[in-house]
Amino acid sequence: MAPRALDYESLNENVKKVQYAVRGELYLRASELQKEGKKVVALCQAPFLLDDPNVGLFFPADAIAKAKHYLAMTIGGLGAYTDSRGMPGVRKEVADFIERRDGYPSDPELIFLTDGASKGVMQILNTIIRGESDGILVPVPQYPLYSAAISLFGGSLVPYFLEETANWGLDVNDLRQSVAQARSKGITVRAMVIINPGNPTGQCLSEANLREILHFCYQENLVLLGDEVYQQNIYQDERPFISARKVLLGMGPRVSKEVQLISFHTVSKGYWGECGQRGGYFEMTNIPPKTVDEIYKVASVSLSPNVPAQIFVSRLAHSVVMGLMVNPPKPGDISYEQFIRESKGILESLRRRARMMTDGFNSCRNVICNFTEGAMYSFPQIRLPPKAIDAAKRAGKVPDVFYCLKLLEATGISTVPGSGFGQKEGVFHLRTTILPAEEDMPEIMDSFKKFNDEFMEQYEGHGGYSRL
Amino acid sequence: MAPRALDYESLNENVKKVQYAVRGELYLRASELQKEGKKVVALCQAPFLLDDPNVGLFFPADAIAKAKHYLAMTIGGLGAYTDSRGMPGVRKEVADFIERRDGYPSDPELIFLTDGASKGVMQILNTIIRGESDGILVPVPQYPLYSAAISLFGGSLVPYFLEETANWGLDVNDLRQSVAQARSKGITVRAMVIINPGNPTGQCLSEANLREILHFCYQENLVLLGDEVYQQNIYQDERPFISARKVLLGMGPRVSKEVQLISFHTVSKGYWGECGQRGGYFEMTNIPPKTVDEIYKVASVSLSPNVPAQIFVSRLAHSVVMGLMVNPPKPGDISYEQFIRESKGILESLRRRARMMTDGFNSCRNVICNFTEGAMYSFPQIRLPPKAIDAAKRAGKVPDVFYCLKLLEATGISTVPGSGFGQKEGVFHLRTTILPAEEDMPEIMDSFKKFNDEFMEQYEGHGGYSRL
Repeated sequence: MAPRALDYESLNENVKKVQYAVRGELYLRASELQKEGKKVVALCQAPFLLDDPNVGLFFPADAIAKAKHYLAMTIGGLGAYTDSRGMPGVRKEVADFIERRDGYPSDPELIFLTDGASKGVMQILNTIIRGESDGILVPVPQYPLYSAAISLFGGSLVPYFLEETANWGLDVNDLRQSVAQARSKGITVRAMVIINPGNPTGQCLSEANLREILHFCYQENLVLLGDEVYQQNIYQDERPFISARKVLLGMGPRVSKEVQLISFHTVSKGYWGECGQRGGYFEMTNIPPKTVDEIYKVASVSLSPNVPAQIFVSRLAHSVVMGLMVNPPKPGDISYEQFIRESKGILESLRRRARMMTDGFNSCRNVICNFTEGAMYSFPQIRLPPKAIDAAKRAGKVPDVFYCLKLLEATGISTVPGSGFGQKEGVFHLRTTILPAEEDMPEIMDSFKKFNDEFMEQYEGHGGYSRL
Repeated sequence: MAPRALDYESLNENVKKVQYAVRGELYLRASELQKEGKKVVALCQAPFLLDDPNVGLFFPADAIAKAKHYLAMTIGGLGAYTDSRGMPGVRKEVADFIERRDGYPSDPELIFLTDGASKGVMQILNTIIRGESDGILVPVPQYPLYSAAISLFGGSLVPYFLEETANWGLDVNDLRQSVAQARSKGITVRAMVIINPGNPTGQCLSEANLREILHFCYQENLVLLGDEVYQQNIYQDERPFISARKVLLGMGPRVSKEVQLISFHTVSKGYWGECGQRGGYFEMTNIPPKTVDEIYKVASVSLSPNVPAQIFVSRLAHSVVMGLMVNPPKPGDISYEQFIRESKGILESLRRRARMMTDGFNSCRNVICNFTEGAMYSFPQIRLPPKAIDAAKRAGKVPDVFYCLKLLEATGISTVPGSGFGQKEGVFHLRTTILPAEEDMPEIMDSFKKFNDEFMEQYEGHGGYSRL
């Protein structure tokens, strides 16, 4: 019998080409604080509870008021489709959030809610990519959503390297080289992805760096796709998160009115990451109305984003830049004081954890690690001795996978090898989260150090890598 | 300045080609019965409520037990990602449901939960379609998800016509002709879509017809995509819903072991349609493990289906074929009696409404209408007089759009013109739902009849179309 359409050999080759070794199963669950928000969603799921005369015994007054607010936005509760772009009321709240954050007004008509940020990124890449000669600039290391989606839609990934020795900064000269190299292969670079704060690299881009990037996009006629899903996870004060949009709108009229920007955000991160809800949004800047119509049309093929998550997007929109929720609850609301106290405590604890982890890695033989400025990951470089690389090859493993497997076996610590994100030739990393409980952190880092130093001893003998 | 990647003229042409005039904003909300289920989901959204000593005052014992059941399946509640295929416990319940329905065991590893059926259909079409020479057989009239997704992924839609005079049945000879015609244009037909019960056409395919279709797929080496989202909306006893899978597995070993089938279902329909939740699943039959791995990999790019909807899928899985929920609540459960009584009442009322609507349309001048056997739509043919067609052309409208606009203006009745679904040249329809309240139905049909008969009088004068 001839191959059938769903036999492996006859599948869409773009599907097979997709690389997706990593699944982001590690997520921020820094808090059990969200009870008030969850009560609101619970009431929205079962709105008839609001008619129960005893509802006030079980739910606080502010949760009841907010549930009524959201239910009034829907057409018949959470079980009905909304507009394919999401509920207008929530999109207005997102626009208000963006305006508060950036200091420039935002138009709700240019904000589309999505089933998580990934779905938005995929839709936009599908809109841009027309074939394999369309290139997208993607950072290396990168969160592999980008490589996977570009493969799936049949485009070309054009890599640019982040500079580890410059705290994972981005050198515009390297960008130019990447574009020139792509051109020499007949690829037209059409868009550029930035992940800020970085995943897996944890850096925050400076305002100056963002200006350079935007100017480069202007010169090269590139759409900028700003993955800003970790904007509320910042662990230092020196380099706050600044949105690409804020920098863009502050530039001269040529650049600020010309560069096409799409920014992505999600409810899965922040202090109250709710990744299982699958909620997010993208905002479009300088995108022509006819293109917005096309994006709307394609969004409408899948009818509407899921409605419960739209409420989580609204709650996200009520948070201020530093991640403290301001509207739900507001000063004066019943649960406000506790809320502020506890959320500040979480932020400070996460900063201490980021510091303990960075310092812990840097105290290990042949390990160097940049500080986690944002996002939720530590991404140390592991300088594997040649004998370890040989041993990995004999075992049929990529060297960093070999190291991470040994680490898992010896300590139970589960990490993601750097090869899942891309890295320079012959350089190895692993990604781990800074989320373990603060009280567990010393033991985890001791356990790591013991494993690592024994591993290095085994494959290198006395004397560090640097002395080879 | 050169066109930028998100300027309209430089978008992916496949995006522009997508046709999507219709959004299924009309949905089954036949019931406010789901309170018990909604209470379960409410408790799952705010699981700490279970620790409140007063929880039993506000929530019934069976809702509390079921919420605990679902929470035990998750990894930390609804706010955490699940496996990209959905929670194993829910997939097992879906497999049990399918086995009860069809009488053949089903493997949970071959069931993937999705954010609604549409997302599943899109993923599978993306997996199959390699380029424009890959053809997909799609019924006409069709739900426009199929034409839209095939455009978006750059494939070719190969239409086959449903036969209105045979109650929207499907003639395999027509299928053969469609395939032959496609071949003559260099298109390889790789898959076939059936929508059963039909949307917008409302027919249920007979077992004999399904056998013919499956045999045809075997002969032509086609994957069968079975859109069975309305399987729980059946309004007559003569022709029950039979799944393509049940028929396939009852055929001889060659066919039953060879034909690749993917079946789609959703939580958006049925008596308790929860379309805003965006939940669904697909089940794969005769799909090789390597292909399943590829589909799993691509599903994992968007991390996981939204988790609240997975609970709605579980509840769907507990329903029996005729749409009566059996497990939640079960006989003996507190809310069982009322549940059965009310759900039977809804079913009977929907049957009466389907009958009133069909009879109403058939009593109108130049209108003929098949009975709605399943799904939730009535799809009458409107035989527009030549003068009406001319008037539409002068107004720059498609003739059925012209008619539906006049209907809306005159009566407030909102319908979808048949041209949104495809129809034979020169034949016109409209789609409307059978969901208006039973007590409103006589007035609606009177109002329609008055409008229609005046319209026909205006454009035709005395004497019916048939006498022309």
